[in-house]
Amino acid sequence: MKVLIVGGAGFLGKRLASTIATQGGLHMGQVAQLTLVDLAFPEEMHKDGSFKCIEGDFSEASVMQSLIEEKPDIIFHLAAVVSGEAEKNFELGMRVNFQGSLQMLEMCRSRDYHPRIVFASSCGVFGGDVKQTISHTTGPKPRSSYGTQKAMVELLMNDYSRRGFVDARSIRLPTISVRPGKPNAATSSFLSGIVREPLNGQKATYPVQESAKFWLLSPKKVIQNFLHAANIDAGKLGDDRMITLPGITVSVEEMLQSLERIAGPKVAALASYEPDEFLQSIVLTWPPYFDTSVAESLGFVKDNSVDELILNYIQEEKIKLPNI
Amino acid sequence: MKVLIVGGAGFLGKRLASTIATQGGLHMGQVAQLTLVDLAFPEEMHKDGSFKCIEGDFSEASVMQSLIEEKPDIIFHLAAVVSGEAEKNFELGMRVNFQGSLQMLEMCRSRDYHPRIVFASSCGVFGGDVKQTISHTTGPKPRSSYGTQKAMVELLMNDYSRRGFVDARSIRLPTISVRPGKPNAATSSFLSGIVREPLNGQKATYPVQESAKFWLLSPKKVIQNFLHAANIDAGKLGDDRMITLPGITVSVEEMLQSLERIAGPKVAALASYEPDEFLQSIVLTWPPYFDTSVAESLGFVKDNSVDELILNYIQEEKIKLPNI
Repeated sequence: MKVLIVGGAGFLGKRLASTIATQGGLHMGQVAQLTLVDLAFPEEMHKDGSFKCIEGDFSEASVMQSLIEEKPDIIFHLAAVVSGEAEKNFELGMRVNFQGSLQMLEMCRSRDYHPRIVFASSCGVFGGDVKQTISHTTGPKPRSSYGTQKAMVELLMNDYSRRGFVDARSIRLPTISVRPGKPNAATSSFLSGIVREPLNGQKATYPVQESAKFWLLSPKKVIQNFLHAANIDAGKLGDDRMITLPGITVSVEEMLQSLERIAGPKVAALASYEPDEFLQSIVLTWPPYFDTSVAESLGFVKDNSVDELILNYIQEEKIKLPNI
Repeated sequence: MKVLIVGGAGFLGKRLASTIATQGGLHMGQVAQLTLVDLAFPEEMHKDGSFKCIEGDFSEASVMQSLIEEKPDIIFHLAAVVSGEAEKNFELGMRVNFQGSLQMLEMCRSRDYHPRIVFASSCGVFGGDVKQTISHTTGPKPRSSYGTQKAMVELLMNDYSRRGFVDARSIRLPTISVRPGKPNAATSSFLSGIVREPLNGQKATYPVQESAKFWLLSPKKVIQNFLHAANIDAGKLGDDRMITLPGITVSVEEMLQSLERIAGPKVAALASYEPDEFLQSIVLTWPPYFDTSVAESLGFVKDNSVDELILNYIQEEKIKLPNI
C-alpha cells in the first residue's frame, strides 16, 4: 500500500509520518511506500530512510501530478496556508487552500482512481455566535478566509465522495495544543506558546482576556484521529464525510492555572496579556462549545483534561521544568 | 443606478427584470440602466425597450468583464446550470455554477468596486436527514453537485462580503411552484408540471410517492424576496449573508387535492405517478421542514397555502380552466 502525506514537513505531517513509519496503525494494508511532499524538509527528514521527501508546492500542477501518478492508496492532505497568513494574503490562501485542494481532487477524478483521502479541515469553519453549542448539524459560518476555504473544500470532499470519485473524510481539527517548536502564523499560535515558552523559561503573551475559551486537542490525540479517519469504514460514514473532532473546552485562565500546578507560579507568571486586535477579531469568533457525540460514537478521541495536555507535552518532548 | 441581472432570460430573471422595469421596487436609487445577460433571449425581450439584453455565457471572462466594467450598483446573480443537468454533467456544473460565480467575485475584487450582489442560492444545499427541521444554524449537507456548488458560492459570498470586497446576500430558494412554461431539466420540474400541465388539459407525471413533501414558494413571492434582499440594510445582516427563504411544506397529495378543489377531479386525475430513480435519488434528499423565523423577522415573505400557489398561477398566467 502507498501512502502520501501532503504537507509532510509540517508539525502534524511529520509526526503522522513518523508514527506510520514506526508504529503502523493503518488497517487498509501494509505500508510499502510512504511519500511526503512539502515546500521544504529539514535535513534529518531527508536522511530518514523510512519515508521519501519530495520538495515542491502541492498546489502547482506539475508537483502534484507526479505524486498522483503513483496512485497512493491513502492521501493525508494537511497542507495549508495557516489562518493568519490566509487572512492577510487572500490570494495566496485561495490558491493554496482552495484551488490546490480542488486540483488534487480533479487529478484523482480525471484518472478514475479513487483514493482514500483524509483532509485536515478545521473547527475554524465555525464562527459567529460563540455562545452556541456546535453539533453535528451546525453549519459552517466562518469568520476567516481560512475557515471559508476549508469549508469549501469539505463540501468538495463530500461531493466527490458521494459521486464515487474519491473516498474522503474531512476531520475538523480543534486548536492543537501544545505544539512543540516555534510560534507560527496561525492565529491560534499563542494557545501553544503560553505553555511552551514559559516551560522553556521564556516570556509569552496571549492576545485575548484570560476568560476566553477555546476548543483544544493534543498532538497525540489528533494523530490517533488522523489514523482512525483513514481506517474507518466508508459504510459507517455514508454521504456525510465532515467530522468535527472531539476536544476539551479550556480558557486561557485554566491553561495558566494548570501550568502553575505543574510547573509552579513563577513559570506560569511568564505568560502575560498583550491585546492584539487582529488576532482577537479572528480567534474570538471561534465557538468553544461543541457536542461531538457523533464523532465520539464513530471512535474519535479527545484528551481528558488540560493537565493531560500539558503533561503529555512535557513527557513527549522531554521537557525539563525550568529552575525558577 | 445601474442594475445587472445575470441569467436574465430565465423564468425568474425575466420576471425580475420586468418587475423592476415596470414597478421599480429597488430602494437604493432610480434605475437608470437595466442590463440582462444570458445565453440567448427571445425576440420579444430584445425588442423590449425597458432593458438591454446581452447574449453570452457569463462564465466566460470576456462576456462578464465588459458587464463588470460598467460597474452595476446591484447585480442579481441567477444564472446556473440546473440541478439535474449539474448532476449529469459534473464538469459543466462546476464550471458555470461554481467557477463562473467565483470569477464574477474576483472581477469585483480586483477592480476594488463593491457592488451589492443578490445571489440565487437554493434550499438544495440541504440534504441528508429529511426529518430534521432546517433552521438558521443548520449546515448545508448537499446530496447533489448543484447543491454543493451553490453552498460553496454562498461561502464565497459571505467571505467576500466580510472582507468588504462586495456586499452580497445569498437567498436560498425553495422549489418555485407553479412555474409557467415548459418542463426543464431541474429535478424539481415536476412540482410545477403536475399543476401546470393538467390545467392545460395535458397529462403529467410525478416521480415520487404522493406522500413526499416539499418546501415551496410561488414565483410572485420569490420576486418580492429578490427585491427585498437587494433593499435590506447591510447592517441588519452583519457577517452572515446566507438567508433561507420562507416557504410552505406541501406534499404531492396536497397539491393534487388543491388542484381538484380548484379545477375539479378530472383535471387533477391527469397527473399520475411514474417512479424515476434518478429524480428520487435527488429530490427525496431535500428536507421539507424549515424554521425560517430569522428570514421572516428580516422581512422575507411566503405564501399562505397551496391553494394560493395555484390560484396565483391561474390569475397571473391568465389560465382558462380546461373544460373536462
